Amino acid sequence: MKSYDLIVIGSGPAGEKAAVKAAYFGHSVAIIEKQRKLGGAGVNTGTLPSKTLKETALYYSGKYDRGLYGIERVLKEEPSIEHFMYRESLVCTTVEREVIKNLMNHKVDIYHGTATFQTNHEIRIKGSKEETIRGEYILIATGSYPFHPTTIPFDFVRVHDSDSILSISRFPKSLCILGAGVIGCEYATIFGTMGIDVFLVNDKQHILTFLDHEISQELVQQMRESYIDILFETSVTNIKMPPHEYELIDITLATGQILHVDMLLYAAGRSGCTDDLNCAAIGVEIGNRQVVVVNEKFQTSVENIYAAGDVVGFPALASTSMDQGRVAVSHMFKTKDLDSLPKVFPYGIYTIPEVSTVGMSEEEAKAAAIDYCTGIAKYKNMPRGKIKGMNNGFLKIVFRRDNLAIIGAHIIGALATELIHFGMTLVNERKTVMQVIATVFNYPTLHDLYKYASYDGLGNLSGHKIKKD
Amino acid sequence: MKSYDLIVIGSGPAGEKAAVKAAYFGHSVAIIEKQRKLGGAGVNTGTLPSKTLKETALYYSGKYDRGLYGIERVLKEEPSIEHFMYRESLVCTTVEREVIKNLMNHKVDIYHGTATFQTNHEIRIKGSKEETIRGEYILIATGSYPFHPTTIPFDFVRVHDSDSILSISRFPKSLCILGAGVIGCEYATIFGTMGIDVFLVNDKQHILTFLDHEISQELVQQMRESYIDILFETSVTNIKMPPHEYELIDITLATGQILHVDMLLYAAGRSGCTDDLNCAAIGVEIGNRQVVVVNEKFQTSVENIYAAGDVVGFPALASTSMDQGRVAVSHMFKTKDLDSLPKVFPYGIYTIPEVSTVGMSEEEAKAAAIDYCTGIAKYKNMPRGKIKGMNNGFLKIVFRRDNLAIIGAHIIGALATELIHFGMTLVNERKTVMQVIATVFNYPTLHDLYKYASYDGLGNLSGHKIKKD
Repeated sequence: MKSYDLIVIGSGPAGEKAAVKAAYFGHSVAIIEKQRKLGGAGVNTGTLPSKTLKETALYYSGKYDRGLYGIERVLKEEPSIEHFMYRESLVCTTVEREVIKNLMNHKVDIYHGTATFQTNHEIRIKGSKEETIRGEYILIATGSYPFHPTTIPFDFVRVHDSDSILSISRFPKSLCILGAGVIGCEYATIFGTMGIDVFLVNDKQHILTFLDHEISQELVQQMRESYIDILFETSVTNIKMPPHEYELIDITLATGQILHVDMLLYAAGRSGCTDDLNCAAIGVEIGNRQVVVVNEKFQTSVENIYAAGDVVGFPALASTSMDQGRVAVSHMFKTKDLDSLPKVFPYGIYTIPEVSTVGMSEEEAKAAAIDYCTGIAKYKNMPRGKIKGMNNGFLKIVFRRDNLAIIGAHIIGALATELIHFGMTLVNERKTVMQVIATVFNYPTLHDLYKYASYDGLGNLSGHKIKKD
Repeated sequence: MKSYDLIVIGSGPAGEKAAVKAAYFGHSVAIIEKQRKLGGAGVNTGTLPSKTLKETALYYSGKYDRGLYGIERVLKEEPSIEHFMYRESLVCTTVEREVIKNLMNHKVDIYHGTATFQTNHEIRIKGSKEETIRGEYILIATGSYPFHPTTIPFDFVRVHDSDSILSISRFPKSLCILGAGVIGCEYATIFGTMGIDVFLVNDKQHILTFLDHEISQELVQQMRESYIDILFETSVTNIKMPPHEYELIDITLATGQILHVDMLLYAAGRSGCTDDLNCAAIGVEIGNRQVVVVNEKFQTSVENIYAAGDVVGFPALASTSMDQGRVAVSHMFKTKDLDSLPKVFPYGIYTIPEVSTVGMSEEEAKAAAIDYCTGIAKYKNMPRGKIKGMNNGFLKIVFRRDNLAIIGAHIIGALATELIHFGMTLVNERKTVMQVIATVFNYPTLHDLYKYASYDGLGNLSGHKIKKD
């Protein structure tokens, strides 16, 4: 039986980075992948595909440059679904090849098949070949899969989950999305920007409830301006599939409304991929939605078995997953380079417009009984925003009244997922609005937003506010 | 005679921000502008115009998205010079109106005319009206003007300086730029990107000698790929203007080469606008190139007279100028909110591609005898870079070997002027490469460059380097 210092199950962001790190530090590593393609949801079905389609939709629609430069740039031809998927496919193939290259360069052995625990050290791999390998340590990085309620008639032709939506063979004439979480909102804005009528069915009063409400309200408004009809506080009671594909699907809502749409995307939750693992037999604790329960070092209830990535649940971001895998490896092999995940990290939502957030929202500050104040700066008031014709979007900071320390930054607008990192350093280092005001930014850049939000905050604090927009 | 707490001479970035700040703190303020338009070079001839033309050139050329998405977007018609200038004119007009609005909202009195010192408190304004006003404090923020050597036959039709180039009435068929400083390089890449043949004549061995050499070498290479012929270590010995506009200008170089070009842009230096002020009479010291000499509070040799912005010389950036004005006001009125300019600030060059830099270059670290190491990450290797098809550009960090503290960050590539701000916080806070590695960035973003440059740096440090590209 082949034996390794570490066996990693799953080659997504958490698994790949963990495997490579352990190998880099001189340990023998095997990685097991159930799917044909390496890279997991980060590369193949989740992160990169939707982020690439977002850029494609922006390019095809010309949404961010239309009307700015005197002459329009127009598409040479009407895009087909193949055109629409062209770059997504290219990017994902390229990145998958790099995952393979990275693993091979670090001499990680790659196995294809489904992994099942025999003991807490032995794993049976069932694929075209079948074998058992031994690992001193094991990392479960199997990811998650879309939850499939029995009431949804998935046919993967017209009724999709967030994986199968990537293999549609034609554009939907109209689309109903069930679930206004991150995935639902991202695809709603991608298809909306492509000019497709989208209904977004949301069982809550707000979308993305973890966001600062001013930010989510702005997102709702911009989505509405972009062909997206959001139906709040309702759910689906019946779905009637027609016999022919040229007929529309009838979706009945709890409100009594009936939607007639061409396609349906179910995007209301994912579950941990733990079914095949046989965790119960070896004592690895499983929680709600089949996630593996871990401590802050990403160690499971069995000492030599760790888990990282989407399979451990929240926050289920590629960025945090990678570092969860790295933290796990640090703890196993005492490499001491990355002992824990930072408490402050950004959350990026790749809707159109982008949203990104770090630290406390205004609602969280209120709930924590912090005596806070806020400041806002709008893209359209920044010279850089004017150059690029950015008429929407803003940065909001939340800071303490007593010592002026910034405790949260929230951005909606172009490049939000990049711009937030400066805010992350402010929250991390407990910088004050006075310190931001004393910072020199390149001019003109969108980072000016931080300076003007700070000025706005000081104006709010003093009641001495001149500029009002 | 009207009397003010502060008189500001010039309404560019330094003057406007100083005037508004003093007014915000309750002082009476007058501002004097010689030009018809308010806003100075920041709005009208320098910063915003060239930055807007850069975006226009990128849009018209499709340089950053060509070939990426399966279908091309093409211009509906061939752009005229009016089209090319359309957005620049719109942006500058809008921002000028905001300067006026900002000054008026803060109840700053606006005077039009040329200012001359009568005494260190009294200023004579000569315009359509003529009058004298008194100021307790005076801020000289008159900016700079393009240097005009007698050997250059400026006609502002075919032979331009960096101000008049904005009023060309047709595209040059070809263009020779004298001077490879920031302005020369920016315009070279704007016109080069528009498909115009550009010659850039540079009397030195490198361009932009204050940059890290690896960065400036990459810029040279990318300029060469973009229709720009850079002629190093040479200068102009003769310029022969033809009698008719349809004939080309002959420019003879010290090397004996003769360039035949349609237009000439002289961009080799600017001088402080101090001629009209009568500084000598009241004892305000003037230095080389007519700049006003100031201390670190931006106070001149006369106690109640300050100077800020391009008129004090280096670094002559809109960003620093604004804060110089604010620091001067803090010192005058003891507002205590901004006592000095930060020592670490970014330098942004809006060429195509953008360059931005903060802290020490490799050459500076070497000259200071610091035991340093470097790390590099390329845009094309970042998933975000792949999505956007960014095949060029990189981030380079310079850090100390002894304690791993980052002492410099240097970027060439799209969004460099935004991305550098995270590097600024690293240099400012003396963060180490280990701390960058332990940072979670949104994925995929270009900020990943910091993480991978840090990994690369650690690999260089240990000699244990696997990935090589």
